[in-house]
Amino acid sequence: MTENIAAFEAIEWTAAGLRLLDQRRLPGEEVYLDLGDAAAVAVAIRDMVVRGAPAIGITAAYGVVLSVQQHLEQSPADWRMRVNRDIELLAAARPTAVNLVWALERMRKCLAAAGDEPVRELLEEAARLHREDISANRRMGVHGANLINKGDSVLTYCNAGSLATGGYGTALGVIRSAWDAGKLEKVFACETRPWLQGARLTAWELVRDDIPVTLITDNSAAFLMQGKQLQWVITGADRVAANGDVINKIGTYQLAVACRYHGVKMMVAAPLSTLDMAMPCGQQVTIEERPAAEVLSLAGHAVAAAGAAAWNPAFDVTPAALVDSLVTEEGVISAPDREKLGEFVGALGLAG
Amino acid sequence: MTENIAAFEAIEWTAAGLRLLDQRRLPGEEVYLDLGDAAAVAVAIRDMVVRGAPAIGITAAYGVVLSVQQHLEQSPADWRMRVNRDIELLAAARPTAVNLVWALERMRKCLAAAGDEPVRELLEEAARLHREDISANRRMGVHGANLINKGDSVLTYCNAGSLATGGYGTALGVIRSAWDAGKLEKVFACETRPWLQGARLTAWELVRDDIPVTLITDNSAAFLMQGKQLQWVITGADRVAANGDVINKIGTYQLAVACRYHGVKMMVAAPLSTLDMAMPCGQQVTIEERPAAEVLSLAGHAVAAAGAAAWNPAFDVTPAALVDSLVTEEGVISAPDREKLGEFVGALGLAG
Repeated sequence: MTENIAAFEAIEWTAAGLRLLDQRRLPGEEVYLDLGDAAAVAVAIRDMVVRGAPAIGITAAYGVVLSVQQHLEQSPADWRMRVNRDIELLAAARPTAVNLVWALERMRKCLAAAGDEPVRELLEEAARLHREDISANRRMGVHGANLINKGDSVLTYCNAGSLATGGYGTALGVIRSAWDAGKLEKVFACETRPWLQGARLTAWELVRDDIPVTLITDNSAAFLMQGKQLQWVITGADRVAANGDVINKIGTYQLAVACRYHGVKMMVAAPLSTLDMAMPCGQQVTIEERPAAEVLSLAGHAVAAAGAAAWNPAFDVTPAALVDSLVTEEGVISAPDREKLGEFVGALGLAG
Repeated sequence: MTENIAAFEAIEWTAAGLRLLDQRRLPGEEVYLDLGDAAAVAVAIRDMVVRGAPAIGITAAYGVVLSVQQHLEQSPADWRMRVNRDIELLAAARPTAVNLVWALERMRKCLAAAGDEPVRELLEEAARLHREDISANRRMGVHGANLINKGDSVLTYCNAGSLATGGYGTALGVIRSAWDAGKLEKVFACETRPWLQGARLTAWELVRDDIPVTLITDNSAAFLMQGKQLQWVITGADRVAANGDVINKIGTYQLAVACRYHGVKMMVAAPLSTLDMAMPCGQQVTIEERPAAEVLSLAGHAVAAAGAAAWNPAFDVTPAALVDSLVTEEGVISAPDREKLGEFVGALGLAG
């Protein structure tokens, strides 16, 4: 049902159900999990088998298909009620990314309109959503790469690649596109504690694509900028508020502050499904706090002294004023703010 | 020979020679290594058995005592030449901290002036240097704590505590002193990748002192500041140039940039032995680059995808303009610059 974009399929619909590449075990092992019902999908999202805002939206959409399959067979009398309960369960799996809510809303509408073959109809909708995401990434890649000058070096953060999306990637889509155009001097990636998505996932994707990547610790970015070795920081987003504030992986804000201080440009690549025009500003978004153990240990080993506490917010809020370019599949918004976003969305005929 | 300040002795002269607490194995294990000659001391410094600018200066001074002991016995004809060769070896163990050079220069002078009992005389000098460092930390603690208001919260970086000094600590000396005075609302510590000195060492020290500590990933500091949960960042220094530029653990500069952006104050606590008045500015200091493996793996486990490169500078340069208070044992220099540092040092009768 999906295009084969990358050399791997992180999210794949198969005869057995939904198959997910277990991203927690990368880069050491490539293990695939087959999930048979929506509850298992919700757990997989919560436990970060799959992560990245677009990817969890797509995964949840397929989770709704599994729900329809199951309940239509087991509870023909009240299957719709049970599917709607599963949709609630999926929506609650992680609180910050808006794509999850957006994808489930599309599936809910499709469910409401479904005729005699709801499984087929919902599967088509999920696969369409998946294909559209890949296509959006491709277009974002072109728009973003157009902003980059030949010889520029870029730094990316966390993983906003094939693994975080339907395929190709948002920030990594821009980097892939710019690399293919021969523009990039050097690609840096922050390791991204505590989950090390940069070291584990972004490096894994880029190595597979033969794009040389240099990892740095998250605390080294400003020193790299001080040495004038960097022109762009490029990240994805988990949500973009109506005023252009960007909610993304913890550490994005610190990079944005360092960018502004050094005159390095900050690019955020996010599909329209990540825009939340109902959210006035970033400060109102629920920032997920994850267990302290993620900071206190690493790869199952306790690294911190026993008795220490930890604060572990999974995301942060970058004010729109620190974003130079917001790249969507429909074009670029420079120095985004409430007015520009409103006009942009209005011109596309999307609801405000 | 040394005062018992902390509940542990990270650097101790014993009948068997020099005993070092192996800081690489903390917090999991408290293992002590007995070193019998200067070559072993140089390796211990290079391999980070002991780290922290004042601590490696003190360790190297005891290393010179071991050298005199050994060569006086084994090569009575040319022992001074051999000791001077060991001093060169010790000086080359790590390139960035100036305390190493400073301590070895004191030992070299003592050696030149030594009479009939060089071992005793040099051991007395090393122990004096050790005691003076602890005393300097105590005085810095008082000066620094005076800058802090009741109810302030502070963030420290890396480890500038008992383990990094002769005892008590520079940045942690200030925090200990402010805590004892009942001033601190909350103490945060960055974990400090790649060696995790914050998580492993600073947390270990503070837990032992019953000072509650909350660890954060290095990328979370700006988000903490955005939430107005912080009034001071307090760090040590590996070297302070004549214009006030601070060379310290990689990530210090990124914190300083975030501090300035948020109006959080930046305090650097450094004894006079860390001032390098012969170094005009920070950009001229050799910044040690350590092996990529330190970023690509953790506790012996590969964490990054195979095939990725890494850039691993051990220190960075914070321009003096970003430092609000430079705290020494002889007092505080506010908004340090070349002129103020020159006057300060001149008034103390130290060479410029």
